[in-house]
Amino acid sequence: MNRPLKLGIAGLGTVGTGLLQLLAEHGPRLAGNVSRPIEVVGVCARSRSKPRAVTTDAIAWFDEAARLAVDPSIDVFVELIGGEGGAAKTAVEAALNAGKSVVTANKALLAKHGADLAGLAEQQGVALQFEAAVAGGIPVIKTLREALAGNQLRRVYGILNGTCNYILTGMTEQGRSYTDVLAEAQAKGYAEADPTLDVDGTDAAHKLAILVQIAFGVAVPLPAIPRRGIAGIDLIDIRFAHELGYTIKLLAEAFLDPANGTDEAGGQLALHVAPVMLKHARPLALVRDAYNAITVVGDAVGTTLYYGRGAGPMPTASAVIADVIDLAVGHAQLSFRTLRLWSGHNRDITLRPQATMPSRFYLRLMVQDRPGVLADVTRALANHRISI
Amino acid sequence: MNRPLKLGIAGLGTVGTGLLQLLAEHGPRLAGNVSRPIEVVGVCARSRSKPRAVTTDAIAWFDEAARLAVDPSIDVFVELIGGEGGAAKTAVEAALNAGKSVVTANKALLAKHGADLAGLAEQQGVALQFEAAVAGGIPVIKTLREALAGNQLRRVYGILNGTCNYILTGMTEQGRSYTDVLAEAQAKGYAEADPTLDVDGTDAAHKLAILVQIAFGVAVPLPAIPRRGIAGIDLIDIRFAHELGYTIKLLAEAFLDPANGTDEAGGQLALHVAPVMLKHARPLALVRDAYNAITVVGDAVGTTLYYGRGAGPMPTASAVIADVIDLAVGHAQLSFRTLRLWSGHNRDITLRPQATMPSRFYLRLMVQDRPGVLADVTRALANHRISI
Repeated sequence: MNRPLKLGIAGLGTVGTGLLQLLAEHGPRLAGNVSRPIEVVGVCARSRSKPRAVTTDAIAWFDEAARLAVDPSIDVFVELIGGEGGAAKTAVEAALNAGKSVVTANKALLAKHGADLAGLAEQQGVALQFEAAVAGGIPVIKTLREALAGNQLRRVYGILNGTCNYILTGMTEQGRSYTDVLAEAQAKGYAEADPTLDVDGTDAAHKLAILVQIAFGVAVPLPAIPRRGIAGIDLIDIRFAHELGYTIKLLAEAFLDPANGTDEAGGQLALHVAPVMLKHARPLALVRDAYNAITVVGDAVGTTLYYGRGAGPMPTASAVIADVIDLAVGHAQLSFRTLRLWSGHNRDITLRPQATMPSRFYLRLMVQDRPGVLADVTRALANHRISI
Repeated sequence: MNRPLKLGIAGLGTVGTGLLQLLAEHGPRLAGNVSRPIEVVGVCARSRSKPRAVTTDAIAWFDEAARLAVDPSIDVFVELIGGEGGAAKTAVEAALNAGKSVVTANKALLAKHGADLAGLAEQQGVALQFEAAVAGGIPVIKTLREALAGNQLRRVYGILNGTCNYILTGMTEQGRSYTDVLAEAQAKGYAEADPTLDVDGTDAAHKLAILVQIAFGVAVPLPAIPRRGIAGIDLIDIRFAHELGYTIKLLAEAFLDPANGTDEAGGQLALHVAPVMLKHARPLALVRDAYNAITVVGDAVGTTLYYGRGAGPMPTASAVIADVIDLAVGHAQLSFRTLRLWSGHNRDITLRPQATMPSRFYLRLMVQDRPGVLADVTRALANHRISI
């Protein structure tokens, strides 16, 4: 048996606690599989006294994440604090600067500072792993990075926000109002007390930015992703869509149009997060509740789809452990040293300006029932060169 | 740039040709991504003069696969010959004995000799890679080996044979007979001239044996997998199933029942390949034509699903290239040396005897319309302790 891999875990919310449980439960089997024990030697959280499902008495306690991040006792810093800056960013930077590999589930941090952090990791010769940052337990990062590496990818799109999907499922299947289902989702823990970042599409845009970086090698600043959320969707829209044969889903989409490009790897990349009407039989239309699914289209593999729980303590912990195992056996370090995985250097791909993206829209009009109304509407649309 | 990774490819059918095309097309991009060129330095096939979509003039030609396998010019031997023994087995063994890593798409070979070949690879300190052997371009092997490694898996099941799924889709959606759709599948290249191994469930059983080895660490001899094919399915069964709300699919299934086990990793494993009636809305019921899909259930991640093309030159070549890339960057070697991935040593899991597997069956009776017929039938069933 080789020497143990020693983890420091910052953040003991539901995911951190789930991770401790999973490591305790499967520790012996994992140690056998990877030929070395995986040990948690330090933890850090806001409150030491808060009751938790697992005891941390045998583990060294740190009051500051940034102190844990650089402690000589740890090999790998696991960041489960969250937030695009603050303590999470400080601690991750400290860990990388101290030569520790980092595993993080923090999509907001990566969407904003991913390229810089990846550059720092590369410079330090350590790894930055983030499978849990997108789509929870679904191994979409590993799939894009490794399994489909022989493909020029064309499209990456899917349902990346479980809260929105839960709300839309409730509205569609039970005919309940947005506010009603949102309240239930909050009660069940599927939505935050302040659900803004979920329902306005920001969370999905964070995840799309990460996927686009990995799939196309393009660093996209968050404001460059046009996004609309689900708060404006009325029950009547869902009913009309249903009658027309469609299900409404919040999709995050990235399409590469190679026709405008200069070579096979070039082209224009169209991005957006928006509620989309999908034919009932489309696989993504069938994804219910808080599940996520991502479709990835490559030039060789064709259309593939990955489905699973996009959030929750144990699915997220499953992804964190996969990253830890890749570090334990040395995979992750190799990926980072030998694969240009987050370099943002693909100058052949440009972002397509939103104004040049043709789309089909659903238009619902509330009008008075009198002659000439439709003529006025169609005239106005014609004046703006909108075809109906 | 590091020194090139040099491949020898044996077998230039549709997959081998597709692989050469893909490497030619994406070579420069791949070389950049993995920081070393990937070169094909030797090929071998039955006929040198057969017209092919790519030229092999610049590549050394070998008349015997086993000679190519041990040639000092190659680092990695790619076996695309097929068949559970013969030239494929001889060449793969020769390559491993010569200290070359092997990439193979040969499910029949792995299902029969996988444990021995993996043992030989381990002994020689080289890698045996086989993503393309199961479900074509869907990265299910990498997912089971790496992405879900933190889970105790509970269930692995799905549609693993595209030919059967194509035939069942045609019967279900177009109301055509088995023989009619089979003939069309043969004309389109989705079914072999002799389709026996596909339609009788053998091909799906080969793939299930490989998945079970990776997912549960259990070596299953092929005869231990009960299997029924689709040749006995009549159009009338599909229609009745449809009326009852079900779609018929050929599923390969592995369920671990931990209740009988001695610890968390133990239990009884139930395996079979059979036509199964799935509720219309189940994700697997919606998999059409020659597509494959696999559901994997883990204790932490919950239910996940992976979908894509299960066969075809380019999807299979996509999987072969992923294996080659893992070798180029050193992943695969690490996996093999540090992860016990095909050891067949899980003595805690036993196979559940088929006679003890409770199942629900669909029974269609053609009887004369006279009093007492149903009484006779139900009496016979009761005598055999079958509940209806």
